[in-house]
Amino acid sequence: MLRTQFEEELNKLHNQFYSMGTQVSAQLNKAVRAFVSHDRELAEDVITSDEMINQLETKLETKSLEMIALQQPVSGDLRTIITVLKASSDLERMGDHVTSIAKAAINLKGEERIHEVEEDISLLGEKVKAVVDASLNAYIQGNDKRAREIADQYQTVKNVSGEIQEKILDAMKENTETITTGKDYLMTLVFLERITGYAVNLCEWIVYLKSGNIVEL
Amino acid sequence: MLRTQFEEELNKLHNQFYSMGTQVSAQLNKAVRAFVSHDRELAEDVITSDEMINQLETKLETKSLEMIALQQPVSGDLRTIITVLKASSDLERMGDHVTSIAKAAINLKGEERIHEVEEDISLLGEKVKAVVDASLNAYIQGNDKRAREIADQYQTVKNVSGEIQEKILDAMKENTETITTGKDYLMTLVFLERITGYAVNLCEWIVYLKSGNIVEL
Repeated sequence: MLRTQFEEELNKLHNQFYSMGTQVSAQLNKAVRAFVSHDRELAEDVITSDEMINQLETKLETKSLEMIALQQPVSGDLRTIITVLKASSDLERMGDHVTSIAKAAINLKGEERIHEVEEDISLLGEKVKAVVDASLNAYIQGNDKRAREIADQYQTVKNVSGEIQEKILDAMKENTETITTGKDYLMTLVFLERITGYAVNLCEWIVYLKSGNIVEL
Repeated sequence: MLRTQFEEELNKLHNQFYSMGTQVSAQLNKAVRAFVSHDRELAEDVITSDEMINQLETKLETKSLEMIALQQPVSGDLRTIITVLKASSDLERMGDHVTSIAKAAINLKGEERIHEVEEDISLLGEKVKAVVDASLNAYIQGNDKRAREIADQYQTVKNVSGEIQEKILDAMKENTETITTGKDYLMTLVFLERITGYAVNLCEWIVYLKSGNIVEL
């Protein structure tokens, strides 16, 4: 294969990865909106889209492996492919958790709700989406310094999630009618934490992409 | 590098991956025991060991990437290395969730407990450990047929987890003193489900290892 043709394929892989990331981010936005606005249709839309996200992962992995096997790339080219190969799983799992949020939104239907908690979850959902988007931007810019900064947001998300969890437990104790709903709120918070964790994993691969070093952020 | 030397390195990588897996499995066993026997010391032991599991992942990833870059392996050899490169993250995340179970065990200390639920969680914990061990055995035997069978266990674990969750919600409604504990039980069930999910991911890589095909089980 000609060098230019290889470079084109590499560039395409890079762009497809970014595009998969923006789709996951858009689904996260939808899932959180469905959760807060009690929109069953929107939630089902998110659940249906998960299959597409899974297919994108398989496609990216297959393509990455093919490029490694046939082109035997080295240094920067190899790192570009390895990053897609590794981090596409992180994007796919973000998608899984987004789907779980959408399923929780459907579960909530008809149950006693806690409006203050839903507002808190909505705000945290926006925060998590901002972290995901920032990590995707750092990827497309190849900005490892920014990637390291983004990773620090994980603790903030965990702290906020912890505070909301306390609020949920208090509400459950005060009014046992909210216990069923409370469970779905608690699960959703775990999913938002995990999505942030996967964004941090992506950041680790951005550092690798630039430096060749495997780090834990 | 001589072919025999490369083969030795490949074999070492394969064994180190398996060894990492058995360590995660042993930690899972400890975490569930700590959870049920209210053993703070054992739980802290699990939390301390997580750092070692994380280091093993970094070591395996670094070694895999080095072998790909320097040896430019093909076909079966490349698949062996790619499997370790991809699935070492699954093992590491199992370890993360095992640590979360240990943290939940510490949280439980002094709170009102539900003995029946703890027994159920203990049994499910054993079941999940059996799934993890089966996937590691399928890996070491390169048994993709077995890997496909193991993946079917995920739904069983989810179903059992769902039943226990219902029991927890009932107990919380009946006695609000159990709400704080109930939260940690619910979280632990999510962690056990996720650990099973990672074992399924490993099974997907066993299928790839044998066939070269990326599948979703």
